[in-house]
Amino acid sequence: MKTGIEVTAAQRTVLDAARALPTETIALTEALGRVLAEPVMSSRTLPPADCSAMDGYAVRRGDLTGASNTAPVELRVVFEVAAGGQAPRALAPGEAARIFTGAPVPDGADTVVRQEDTEGLDTSVRVHVDPPLRDHIRDAGEDVCAGDEVLAVGAVLQPGHIGMLASLGRTLVAVHRRPRVAVLSGGNELVEPDRDPSGGRIVSSNAYSISAQCIEAGAIPTNLGIARDTPEDLERLLRAGLEADLLVSSAGVSVGDHDHVRPVLEKLGCPLVFWGVNMKPGYPIAFGRFPDGRGPLVFGLPGNPVSAMVTFDQFVRPVLRRMAGHTKVFRPTLRATLAETLMKKPGRLHFVRVGLERRGDEIRATPTGNQSSGVLRSMTLAQGLLVFAADAEEIAAGSLVDVQLLDADWLSREAPA
Amino acid sequence: MKTGIEVTAAQRTVLDAARALPTETIALTEALGRVLAEPVMSSRTLPPADCSAMDGYAVRRGDLTGASNTAPVELRVVFEVAAGGQAPRALAPGEAARIFTGAPVPDGADTVVRQEDTEGLDTSVRVHVDPPLRDHIRDAGEDVCAGDEVLAVGAVLQPGHIGMLASLGRTLVAVHRRPRVAVLSGGNELVEPDRDPSGGRIVSSNAYSISAQCIEAGAIPTNLGIARDTPEDLERLLRAGLEADLLVSSAGVSVGDHDHVRPVLEKLGCPLVFWGVNMKPGYPIAFGRFPDGRGPLVFGLPGNPVSAMVTFDQFVRPVLRRMAGHTKVFRPTLRATLAETLMKKPGRLHFVRVGLERRGDEIRATPTGNQSSGVLRSMTLAQGLLVFAADAEEIAAGSLVDVQLLDADWLSREAPA
Repeated sequence: MKTGIEVTAAQRTVLDAARALPTETIALTEALGRVLAEPVMSSRTLPPADCSAMDGYAVRRGDLTGASNTAPVELRVVFEVAAGGQAPRALAPGEAARIFTGAPVPDGADTVVRQEDTEGLDTSVRVHVDPPLRDHIRDAGEDVCAGDEVLAVGAVLQPGHIGMLASLGRTLVAVHRRPRVAVLSGGNELVEPDRDPSGGRIVSSNAYSISAQCIEAGAIPTNLGIARDTPEDLERLLRAGLEADLLVSSAGVSVGDHDHVRPVLEKLGCPLVFWGVNMKPGYPIAFGRFPDGRGPLVFGLPGNPVSAMVTFDQFVRPVLRRMAGHTKVFRPTLRATLAETLMKKPGRLHFVRVGLERRGDEIRATPTGNQSSGVLRSMTLAQGLLVFAADAEEIAAGSLVDVQLLDADWLSREAPA
Repeated sequence: MKTGIEVTAAQRTVLDAARALPTETIALTEALGRVLAEPVMSSRTLPPADCSAMDGYAVRRGDLTGASNTAPVELRVVFEVAAGGQAPRALAPGEAARIFTGAPVPDGADTVVRQEDTEGLDTSVRVHVDPPLRDHIRDAGEDVCAGDEVLAVGAVLQPGHIGMLASLGRTLVAVHRRPRVAVLSGGNELVEPDRDPSGGRIVSSNAYSISAQCIEAGAIPTNLGIARDTPEDLERLLRAGLEADLLVSSAGVSVGDHDHVRPVLEKLGCPLVFWGVNMKPGYPIAFGRFPDGRGPLVFGLPGNPVSAMVTFDQFVRPVLRRMAGHTKVFRPTLRATLAETLMKKPGRLHFVRVGLERRGDEIRATPTGNQSSGVLRSMTLAQGLLVFAADAEEIAAGSLVDVQLLDADWLSREAPA
C-alpha cells in the first residue's frame, strides 16, 4: 500500500482500475445522457427520395425563365402531392403540381416554388419568380445514406441523437450499463437525518451528499445505512455492498483506534492500494481493489463532510464516468481571476471552495470563507474548486487561476446571447 | 397575432407568459437539480458544541508551553471521548483526554493535539508540540447557527445542498413542481419509429427529440402520438393535452392548405400570440396562450427536424426552466473563433450548427456542413449554435463569435486540471 501520494498519481491509479461496464439494451426514450456502446449504421436513406422543403408548387425550371412579379408565368396545376403521398404521373412541360413540405418531387419536376412566390387560380398558378434549378428540393440521402455509420461508439446521447435514432427506426439502443454504487457510513455517533441528534450524536449526512454525487455522475446509488464501530457490523454492511460495481464508505479509514475498515476489507480479500493523498481537504482517502476484478472498487472517504465530497469529486466521479462509458471524465475547468490573496504551507494541493461571478467577459473567483472541512455550508456557496498547487505558497489577488466547475448550470444565462 | 417578429421579442413574449409552477414537497433523495421554493432556516447549531477536528488528545494549552520533539511534555490520560460521546467530567491541569474526530471537547480543555504529534503510553501521553490555542477545535456553530437562513428560495439543489439539508434533518424539501409537457405530432405521412416507413411515409422522429429536450430541461413529457390531418383528429389530441402545463405540437402550423392547428386552437379558446419569427432555421413557429391562464401555453413548432429542435431550444426551453423555478433560463454562451467564413442575406437571424474543438485556451467553432433544416444528423455533430445576427451578411474566418452551448458536458476534460 502506498501512502501520501500526489493527487494526479492517485487519479491515474483509480482510473487504471476502471473499465467501461458491459452493454445493456434500453428504450430510446430512456437513453438521454447515456453512452453508446455500439456504432449505429443506417439501413435507410433519408430522405428516401428527392422531396420538397416547402409548401408550394413542383415545376419544370425551364418553364419559368424570365418570370417575375411584373411578368408572371402561368402553369396548369394537374395534381397535388402531399407528404407521404405519390405523384400519379410525371410532370409535362407547362404543368405544375401542388406540393407540400416533405412530399416526393414528381418525375419531370426539377424545382419547387414557394407558395409565397405564387398566386393560385382555379386550375392554374401564376409564378412570380425565376428560381434556381432544384430550389427548395431536399436531395435523396441529404441527411443519411444507407450503410453510413451515423453514430459512433462513445457518443453521449443528446436530444439530436435521440431524434436521429428514431428516424432510423431504432427504438432500442445499446449503451453502457450505469454503475451501481453501494454507499455506507460508519460511526457509533451517527443517526439518520430523520432522527433526533441531541446528546452529541451526528446526522449521517454524507450518505446523502454522496448519493446525490453518484446520481450527478450518472450512477445508481444504494444507501446501505450506518455501520456501528465494530468489525462485525462493518463486515455485515461491506458484504451487502459486494455485488455493486463500486463501494463507497464514508468515515472509518484513518489512523484512529476506532477504524476497522481496513482490516475488515483485507479479511474480505480486498487489499488497499493507497491510503492518504497529499491534498486538503481530504488527506485520509483510501482506495482498495479486489484482485482480478472479483469485487467492486472500494473507496474509503474521510468523514468530514467537505472532505468526503471533494475526494469523491476528484477520484470517484471520474471512475464512475469511465464505467458509464465516458472518455471525458474530469470536470470542466475555467480560467478565473482570484479576488483575494491565498496563502498556505507548501506540501499539499489545496482545493479551495470558491464562489464564481461573471463580470463581462471575466469570471471572478472568491473563496467562500472558512475552508474548514467541517463547513458543509461552504459547498452550498461554491460553484468551483480552485486548484492551489502542492508546492505553491501564495496566489496573489488578481492572478488567473484554474477552477474546476462543480455546477455546469452556473454557466447558464439570465438573458439570451 | 403578430407575425415576423425578432427572436429576442419572441423570447420576451413567451417568458412574460411563464410563471414558476406551484410547490410540491418531495423526498430529499429525489431533489437533485430541483429548485427550492421555500427558504431553509436552521433550527440547529452545527456543530452543536466545540468538537475535535482530528483524532488525538484534548489538552489544556497552558500545560504544553515549550513542548517539542526533544522536550516532550507528559500528560495523564484520564478518559476518552468518542464522537457522539460525552466527557464524564472536566479536564484538570496535567490531564489529557483521548479524543476522536467529531467528539465534543471536554470542559477544561481548550486545544486538541493530533495523534501524529504524540506518543501514547499506558496511562499517559507524551506530546511533542506546543500548539496554538484552540488548535484542531471546530467551534460550535462554525457551520450553521440556529435561526440562520441556510438556503435561499431559488437555489438549484446540488449535492452540497442535499448534504446540508440532511444535516439539518430536512428529509423532505419544498421545490417547484416540474412542468408537464404534452407532445403531439401531426401529419398523414407520419409513422411511429417502430413501423415500416416505405412508400414515402416519414418517421415521426420529432416527438422523440422534443421529449428528450423536455427531459434535459427538467420537464416531464407525455407523447400523445400522431394526429391525422383532419380538424377532428387534431382537436382530439389537443384536448388530450389541455391538462398539461405546456403543449408542443410539431408540424401543422404553416401557410399550407393542410394546416388545421390554428383554427382548432382558436375553437378551443386559445388564440395565437405570434406566428413566424425572423430566424433560420425555424421561421414558422407559433405561440398561443389561453386567456387568464386557463390552459397550457401552446407552441406549434415547424415540422423540419432541425427547425423543431432549434425553436424548442430558443423558446420552449427557457419557458420550461422558468416554470421549474430557474432564474438562469438561457443556454451558456462561449466566445469561439470561427473556422470558416459565413455568409447570408440580411433579414433573419441564423442559428448555425457548429462543432466545437478546444485548442489550448481557444475554442474553435466549425459549421457542421449542410445547414438544411432537414439534416438532423447535423444536430448530432453540433455542440453549439452560432448566433449570426439578423442584419449581418458575413462573418469572416478567424472572428470571435458567440456560441450557445448545447451540450454542457462537452466542456468536460479528458485530463484533470
